[in-house]
Amino acid sequence: MQLNSSLEAIAENRLIAGWLRALSRRPDQHNRPHEADAELIPLPGGEQLLALTVDTVAEEIALGFYRDPETVGWMAAMVSLSDLAAVGATPLGLLVSATLPQEAAAGWQAGVARGLEAACRAAGTYVLGGDTNFGAQPSVTTAAAGVVARERVLLRTGCRPGERLYATGRLGGGGPVAARALWSLPEALVAGEFRPRARLAAGQALAGLATACMDSSDGLIATLDQLARLNGVGFELTTPLAELLDPAALRLSEALGLDPLLMLAQPHGEFELLFTLEAARELPEEISARSGGAPLLLGRLVPEPGVIRLAGERPRVVDGARIRNLLDEVGGDLPRYTEELMRLVQEAAG
Amino acid sequence: MQLNSSLEAIAENRLIAGWLRALSRRPDQHNRPHEADAELIPLPGGEQLLALTVDTVAEEIALGFYRDPETVGWMAAMVSLSDLAAVGATPLGLLVSATLPQEAAAGWQAGVARGLEAACRAAGTYVLGGDTNFGAQPSVTTAAAGVVARERVLLRTGCRPGERLYATGRLGGGGPVAARALWSLPEALVAGEFRPRARLAAGQALAGLATACMDSSDGLIATLDQLARLNGVGFELTTPLAELLDPAALRLSEALGLDPLLMLAQPHGEFELLFTLEAARELPEEISARSGGAPLLLGRLVPEPGVIRLAGERPRVVDGARIRNLLDEVGGDLPRYTEELMRLVQEAAG
Repeated sequence: MQLNSSLEAIAENRLIAGWLRALSRRPDQHNRPHEADAELIPLPGGEQLLALTVDTVAEEIALGFYRDPETVGWMAAMVSLSDLAAVGATPLGLLVSATLPQEAAAGWQAGVARGLEAACRAAGTYVLGGDTNFGAQPSVTTAAAGVVARERVLLRTGCRPGERLYATGRLGGGGPVAARALWSLPEALVAGEFRPRARLAAGQALAGLATACMDSSDGLIATLDQLARLNGVGFELTTPLAELLDPAALRLSEALGLDPLLMLAQPHGEFELLFTLEAARELPEEISARSGGAPLLLGRLVPEPGVIRLAGERPRVVDGARIRNLLDEVGGDLPRYTEELMRLVQEAAG
Repeated sequence: MQLNSSLEAIAENRLIAGWLRALSRRPDQHNRPHEADAELIPLPGGEQLLALTVDTVAEEIALGFYRDPETVGWMAAMVSLSDLAAVGATPLGLLVSATLPQEAAAGWQAGVARGLEAACRAAGTYVLGGDTNFGAQPSVTTAAAGVVARERVLLRTGCRPGERLYATGRLGGGGPVAARALWSLPEALVAGEFRPRARLAAGQALAGLATACMDSSDGLIATLDQLARLNGVGFELTTPLAELLDPAALRLSEALGLDPLLMLAQPHGEFELLFTLEAARELPEEISARSGGAPLLLGRLVPEPGVIRLAGERPRVVDGARIRNLLDEVGGDLPRYTEELMRLVQEAAG
């Protein structure tokens, strides 16, 4: 399949295109490339789709975002479960491939297992099996499987101008743990470990209703940029950004005098669902009850392809492509990345 | 679930027990721990089981067994597909999480993709999606999903004394590439790269017939030892070992004057299926046609729990536990491991 030029403007999409060029696609795969957070395959009978996804947690450990094995286990489970949530699937369970550091293997195994178990209890699912390896650099890969009815599955594609944009909860929650590690912040500014929850109940409540859905695991701006490119639409955020911020991200932004956009533009996201509803469609009542809080209205979809506009006294536009390509542009140099990202955010603010 | 003491005698089983103690088990999971090469979960309706498995190829790259990215891609696909073969499942597809080396990412991506694609074409399946990371140490994790009817699924458990033991093909094929890397052998002794094939057609032909089945990915002796412990049986190999050896393994053994047992006892296996049939049961005709060659009769099951006996003029016994625990015992010291393994093999021979 040919990627369109808008998707190819993003370094990560070009990386994916490299795989797509070389690999044949299963003819009956329900989703096209990029079109869903999980891969969707018809099960025997054809009415149900199997949702499958895989993710590796490694870089976040190396960078010190996740400081203990229990956090690593929790995050490894949630990152895959969140992909199931974003397609509206009910989990069947997780597979885990863990690479333990040789010199502390027993402690790592116990901690990762505790984190996996706690995450599975929180999400109502199970680790089904897995594989253990040993290496210098610890990592945990999870694959998740779930089931969703074909006529209710959520895709990233299908939304249109005029519709409303929501999030299942406050955003930017992944920012503080990243900032703590990269800027060596004092513990008091970012207390505790990161324990986001995959929005499985919300995804199931939205199944068959949302016109598009994607999780915010790469941060709000990257997610909106990808949705905009896939759907040929733009977004106007009408709710002030500070009101969208997760409490920890808001506290940190206020303490350091940061533009709220920074926490939403940096790429270490959280596991909320961003979704769109037709303007005439009411939010389903069950979503608030089942997901532990009312979704936030972020704004609306506009016809300008790829545009992310922040409403306010003086509307400003966010350059999604620049922000998403920045890490690639600076060759992975993180101090320079942070500096440049702050500059881009200021430009958008100015 | 409690592991029995026989399983706990093996270091790898104790490692797995560490996970099992900490993780709740899905109540309707079809297989108990250790009981199948893939995890088995009832699909909606209940007649079909979803087979899921995950494996990481990393150590074989670090050790130089797989010398090029294409081999890594092929092996990563086959290692997971072989687990589906061993439960009799039909693959739905693969997920791939690849960690590419930063300094040669493009070449690695292209090579791994070629290997994955070639393996999928050979096996009649597809890569469904995946995830890309970057790190100092390359690795490829695959998860595979397949489907098998509940009443036809193959387990590792269920075989009994008096039954016959078969393999879908010649064994020891993983040995030469390991020996080449560890002993720095001249290229002429071990030509080419490793391209074993998962025995999917054979597994499907055996589904509902074999009383137990397990793939030989950890080598013949480790596989027999695990089957013996799980079933409380022993094995007597009546076919001379040299007749069981894969051509490359036989050639290398003859060139270096090695006991044929060495290639079957070392842990870098291949992807044949070891399976058991009731003595009165004929081999299904389709298995030869579909799997590309007649299975080999290895021997028979005996009542002595855990025993692996080699028949011949003077019967000898292989110490499966010693062999399987050896790498752990020597603390991963590979030169010492090789030396000790050769000594254990000689003891069994003497």
